[in-house]
Amino acid sequence: MYESKHNWNDAMNAEIITIGNELVSGSVIDTNSSFLAERLLSIGIEVTRITSVGDNELDITDSLESALQRSEVILITGGLGPTPDDITAEVAAKTLGRELVINEEALDWVKGFFKKLGLEMSPNNEKQALIPERTELIMNPTGTACGFLAREKDKLVFFLPGVPRELVRMTDESILPILQREKGEGFQFKTTTLKVFGLGESKIAELIKDVVQKCESVRIGFLPNYPENYIKITAKGLDYEETSTIVSTIEEEITKQLGDYIFGRDDQTLEGVVGDLLRENRDTIAVAESCTGGLISHRLTNVPGSSDYMMRGIVAYSNQAKTDLLNIPASLIDESGAVSSKVAEKMAQGVRELGKTTLGLAVTGIAGPGGGTPDKPVGLVFISLSDKKETVLKGYNFPGNRAQIRLAASHAALDLVRRYYLK
Amino acid sequence: MYESKHNWNDAMNAEIITIGNELVSGSVIDTNSSFLAERLLSIGIEVTRITSVGDNELDITDSLESALQRSEVILITGGLGPTPDDITAEVAAKTLGRELVINEEALDWVKGFFKKLGLEMSPNNEKQALIPERTELIMNPTGTACGFLAREKDKLVFFLPGVPRELVRMTDESILPILQREKGEGFQFKTTTLKVFGLGESKIAELIKDVVQKCESVRIGFLPNYPENYIKITAKGLDYEETSTIVSTIEEEITKQLGDYIFGRDDQTLEGVVGDLLRENRDTIAVAESCTGGLISHRLTNVPGSSDYMMRGIVAYSNQAKTDLLNIPASLIDESGAVSSKVAEKMAQGVRELGKTTLGLAVTGIAGPGGGTPDKPVGLVFISLSDKKETVLKGYNFPGNRAQIRLAASHAALDLVRRYYLK
Repeated sequence: MYESKHNWNDAMNAEIITIGNELVSGSVIDTNSSFLAERLLSIGIEVTRITSVGDNELDITDSLESALQRSEVILITGGLGPTPDDITAEVAAKTLGRELVINEEALDWVKGFFKKLGLEMSPNNEKQALIPERTELIMNPTGTACGFLAREKDKLVFFLPGVPRELVRMTDESILPILQREKGEGFQFKTTTLKVFGLGESKIAELIKDVVQKCESVRIGFLPNYPENYIKITAKGLDYEETSTIVSTIEEEITKQLGDYIFGRDDQTLEGVVGDLLRENRDTIAVAESCTGGLISHRLTNVPGSSDYMMRGIVAYSNQAKTDLLNIPASLIDESGAVSSKVAEKMAQGVRELGKTTLGLAVTGIAGPGGGTPDKPVGLVFISLSDKKETVLKGYNFPGNRAQIRLAASHAALDLVRRYYLK
Repeated sequence: MYESKHNWNDAMNAEIITIGNELVSGSVIDTNSSFLAERLLSIGIEVTRITSVGDNELDITDSLESALQRSEVILITGGLGPTPDDITAEVAAKTLGRELVINEEALDWVKGFFKKLGLEMSPNNEKQALIPERTELIMNPTGTACGFLAREKDKLVFFLPGVPRELVRMTDESILPILQREKGEGFQFKTTTLKVFGLGESKIAELIKDVVQKCESVRIGFLPNYPENYIKITAKGLDYEETSTIVSTIEEEITKQLGDYIFGRDDQTLEGVVGDLLRENRDTIAVAESCTGGLISHRLTNVPGSSDYMMRGIVAYSNQAKTDLLNIPASLIDESGAVSSKVAEKMAQGVRELGKTTLGLAVTGIAGPGGGTPDKPVGLVFISLSDKKETVLKGYNFPGNRAQIRLAASHAALDLVRRYYLK
């Protein structure tokens, strides 16, 4: 996986410091940094470094001092809570040479927060109103830990809570608007992500090599997200329209190469795309699953409003269930085996007929780790899609462990429905 | 959330540097760091800082030089690939004052790798055998990027590939054994995670406050993992037996307070625990789902060997499916509504009787965002469990969005089965 990097030196630089023992002990994965980096990039600010340290004075001071020497914008998350190990505000005051004072606005906020919930405020929470002087308060609409912005010469230093949910809201409502204002008109970034299924990373790279090579002002990144691959196009420009046009042009050229292997873009999911196709065509679907064990039904029904087209799912894990619920003759299972092309087809037909739906989708296979034979190894999966007129069958040998095989099989099944509508 | 930190200054210190433009742009969440930190802690090495920088010489050099001044062990991941933006080995050589030379062992490995796959080696891949002199090669059993260990005075600097799958295997097979050997007998860490469902974080904190307060040589961390909460107990000692005993004692005391709200520990999952109970009792189960849309079946069948007890799942998304597949009288759905206690009970009974299983588990509810009414708001979920003798019913009002409600409902359903066996 790689992401090309172009010479965008005129972009504003930022640095992120995340604070918390749970981060450096490996108990918690730091998701705040990538969230902040992505959001900053969307307004033309590039993050050049991310540092995580524990809740201790020396490491916090040192990382803040180093960052002040390098970057124009510094975002610090964590350590603003009510417990004794939360020392970020105190260390910030010391490092920036400011007094720690009770901020009345913050105190009112914390008091109001508890009052609204009908709870008594613990004395610990009063500590959350102790904030370095000469800072701007950043309200936290969903928590007690207010953030603050310190201006240190020409640098902006943001101190923010570490709870992801609180940070997300404060970023969009306060931090990005402040940064937009500070940096003036400047450069805008425009990003589009193309989502690909059915082509490996190296094959994609080969197919779009020429497009990538001639891109000078555009960054193209490859991100595998098993079993999908993402292509992320980022362009920079002074003008929003112009930047969008550049991204659209690259998108078109890549689409010309990859065609319908691209199933969606940005926030789209495969199950969402399939759902839209079913709804647009006023079709309905029923699903019969064996080795995927309910995953396809789960994914289809993840989409709000999926009850418009998703009628029923059958997880026919036992052979008896296949016979009872899908009308598969026991003799066919005896002859061909539960994992066979014939049983897959019968499952798709059976679930469609019994459910009186437009489409019937079925999967049977061996997810492992046990149950494989030389003839029918772990990873062997049959997928079938049936409509009134015909029944399509696909056979696969998926690599990987149980979870990977199940995930890839559910993807391949959903993709079969998508491609049904491309015909 | 917090994690207490005790004075373990005599532990060996380590630092992690992850390299990649995709990390600082926010395209990819850095999971390597937390993985490495956790693994290192398990052998008594504490990570004090994690730094992520892009693929550029200045930032890599600067972060490596700073780390060499602070830490005994440095682990660097990423930038060892075949593409031109992979510059870690080159920058490492410069920073450590060594020549970059073709490592014959690495070259043989890369060549053999391609030969085994029946593929031609691209000239780019030869670059992956260019490694700083005076280093020890660390084999990568699943990829072409070998790692290497540089000894710089008394410090150990590991350079490793950034692909998580490759890193995991190399860590367990090579890096931990090397570190164990280097640090000699030293301190051992023993960690146990208790997994809790059905109690909030603040309630847990209140219940085990006394246990936490009297712990001096033990670190206790709280980690919410919606809808579960984890309690992580870490003890340090010179003697493995002794350290294990300390952890066991704390575990016992916490268990005394939280009782059967603790459903498992360490790698156990709720669906795995439920599966074990079903198997031990030679029981079988059938599942009927409406709002969870297949998630419960999916989770149960995630467990290898679940075909021993999981017979069938019905995703009765439409009312017609509830009538057809679960024998729910259409009149009952008309009278009480599809989301009602009576329908939930009938679903559990129906799926059990038709599937001829020991247990029938059923869920019906409103996952939202649409479909709620003042009487039956989004989040209302009924869960029922039926055996030959009786049918149990539970009603919930789950907070959160669609995905959270579905996840919490699937948890509550599985927990109802677990508690069935606690009686």
